[in-house]
Amino acid sequence: MKFSEINTPAVVIDRDIVERNIHRFQGYCVQNGIALRPHIKTHKIVELARLQIAAGAVGINCQKLGEAEVMAAHGLDNILITYNIIGETKLARLVALAAKISKLAVTADSDYTLQGLSAAFTKADKPLEVLVECDTGGMRCGVQAPGEAVEMAKRIAMLPGLVFGGLMTYPAKGGTSAVEAFMSSAQRSLQALGLPCRTITSGGTPDMWQAHEAPVVTEYRVGTYIYNDRSLVAGKNCGWDDCALSVLTTVVSTPAPGRAIIDAGSKALSSDLMGLDGYGEILGHPQVRITGLSEEHGHLEYPAGGGALQVGQRLKVIPNHACVVSNLFDRVNFVRKGRIEKVAPVDARGCCS
Amino acid sequence: MKFSEINTPAVVIDRDIVERNIHRFQGYCVQNGIALRPHIKTHKIVELARLQIAAGAVGINCQKLGEAEVMAAHGLDNILITYNIIGETKLARLVALAAKISKLAVTADSDYTLQGLSAAFTKADKPLEVLVECDTGGMRCGVQAPGEAVEMAKRIAMLPGLVFGGLMTYPAKGGTSAVEAFMSSAQRSLQALGLPCRTITSGGTPDMWQAHEAPVVTEYRVGTYIYNDRSLVAGKNCGWDDCALSVLTTVVSTPAPGRAIIDAGSKALSSDLMGLDGYGEILGHPQVRITGLSEEHGHLEYPAGGGALQVGQRLKVIPNHACVVSNLFDRVNFVRKGRIEKVAPVDARGCCS
Repeated sequence: MKFSEINTPAVVIDRDIVERNIHRFQGYCVQNGIALRPHIKTHKIVELARLQIAAGAVGINCQKLGEAEVMAAHGLDNILITYNIIGETKLARLVALAAKISKLAVTADSDYTLQGLSAAFTKADKPLEVLVECDTGGMRCGVQAPGEAVEMAKRIAMLPGLVFGGLMTYPAKGGTSAVEAFMSSAQRSLQALGLPCRTITSGGTPDMWQAHEAPVVTEYRVGTYIYNDRSLVAGKNCGWDDCALSVLTTVVSTPAPGRAIIDAGSKALSSDLMGLDGYGEILGHPQVRITGLSEEHGHLEYPAGGGALQVGQRLKVIPNHACVVSNLFDRVNFVRKGRIEKVAPVDARGCCS
Repeated sequence: MKFSEINTPAVVIDRDIVERNIHRFQGYCVQNGIALRPHIKTHKIVELARLQIAAGAVGINCQKLGEAEVMAAHGLDNILITYNIIGETKLARLVALAAKISKLAVTADSDYTLQGLSAAFTKADKPLEVLVECDTGGMRCGVQAPGEAVEMAKRIAMLPGLVFGGLMTYPAKGGTSAVEAFMSSAQRSLQALGLPCRTITSGGTPDMWQAHEAPVVTEYRVGTYIYNDRSLVAGKNCGWDDCALSVLTTVVSTPAPGRAIIDAGSKALSSDLMGLDGYGEILGHPQVRITGLSEEHGHLEYPAGGGALQVGQRLKVIPNHACVVSNLFDRVNFVRKGRIEKVAPVDARGCCS
């Protein structure tokens, strides 16, 4: 298929940029003695997970059990699911997954989760590694204080079927020093108890270049870094040339001066604003703003005077948030130097359970 | 599978409510002499499209060619695609689709679109029916004035391969009288020219009970009415008991008093706010608000004093916008009186091109 034959809207992934993004942060991690565990939620593509491992990643991070099942079915190993796995159906799936790969770990932040995991893994062939999820300021899941993390680590160590694997956090943006303070405190207490804490894992693309400023952290998890997006450009993490994922779209209507409609709406770009103005950046047309989205229409506005868009014209949009866009498409187009290299399935798309 | 074994997050569709919603508006349309053409973008499920036809709908409305292809492949006929179909690849697909079903129509609002359609259908077995899309205030696609609609109708009538099918609009909310004014004016001019305007089609769930107040309209298109959602309850279109689609979710963490985390995030509920406060309504827990969404976590807040949530507890969420939720799931669970009737594929999920 030629590039001009791509049915829009479509996701286009620039492989050269992907590889540069992978290697750049892998190099930083090697330099700083940090293990890198990429989060596959951003791309959900087996081939890209393999690229990340080949570049030196220690393993992969999944957010949901379903994602991990897909990755494991395609041969990926050393998987950390940073989620409380709850309920009999999911626990049975987790036991089956653990039997298929050599290294699996999950996180937990409550006794409820631990009791379920322990009951499920008591009769399993090998114990399950469990990390304590810590809230270092991100206000999502996680125990609220280092002392609670220590108590939970002790319970994991005592519960049948489980092995204490370390501490995990998804910090607030700008929260690197808070991570260092929380984790150092918990680590000292664990050492005093003789409970070795091999892994302390933090993450987040927005603060990834500050990972070394929390030296207690042994492992870093990043997802969006592989593609980058408009929110990361806005945050000065990267430039437009570092954005590997774009949505190719066609102008389908120019109903009035200063207005145009594209064939990518909220079912292609998502409604994620990430605190930004507008729903994406149209490369090469800085004067054009995506001011609104219907489900299948993007609403563009631009100064009526200059640079009018034409029906049939194709535009490349860098979305606000790459991770949710991936999840809206069954396939992406890998391109290299403007030519389509292959069409790849988004293997774990929709695996939210 | 038992209800308790559903892996959350999951979409649950109450079939009794679906059937009531279908029949209630079909009855209104029959009573008012309006043809009903349901928009399948909301459910994207062949079985539900068939239910709508069986209840008396004249045909179906699709927003994208890909949706129409899926529906036609499953035997649905009389399809209106309310979209400017543009580009050689799509035009070839459209010709192939037209050959498969007995009645297909599309909309157009520019010469560019018309020229492409005409070129593609000149050599086809039968001409393509084209309706002129009119902007009656919705500020999306569409010609801007009745006179422009008439000019475009004349061009359709003259172009080889095309047949003028009528006028179409997707009005602004509260725009029923604007529809009547625009369409009556265009209709009078078309009659004076001897160009019969058989179909004048309007749509939109929020104003569907006012459809009869624009008597010039012969056909009405509605999508969300089959499921309803939080935005429609907020707009007093319906009550919670009329919401057929809910997202079943599990509390996975209660990290601090007054806060809980559920396993449905923006990849399950979408970030659509529809002008509302919060990302969905938790049935039976009016004091609990969904204040934020990560990709796979929903952030709940409630008064720390009363009615705390428990880890493992299941909740039913009515999403702000049902149509985008459907598009995030491969399958939905049809239930009747609390029991799972069947698991149905979302046949046209992701067909945005």
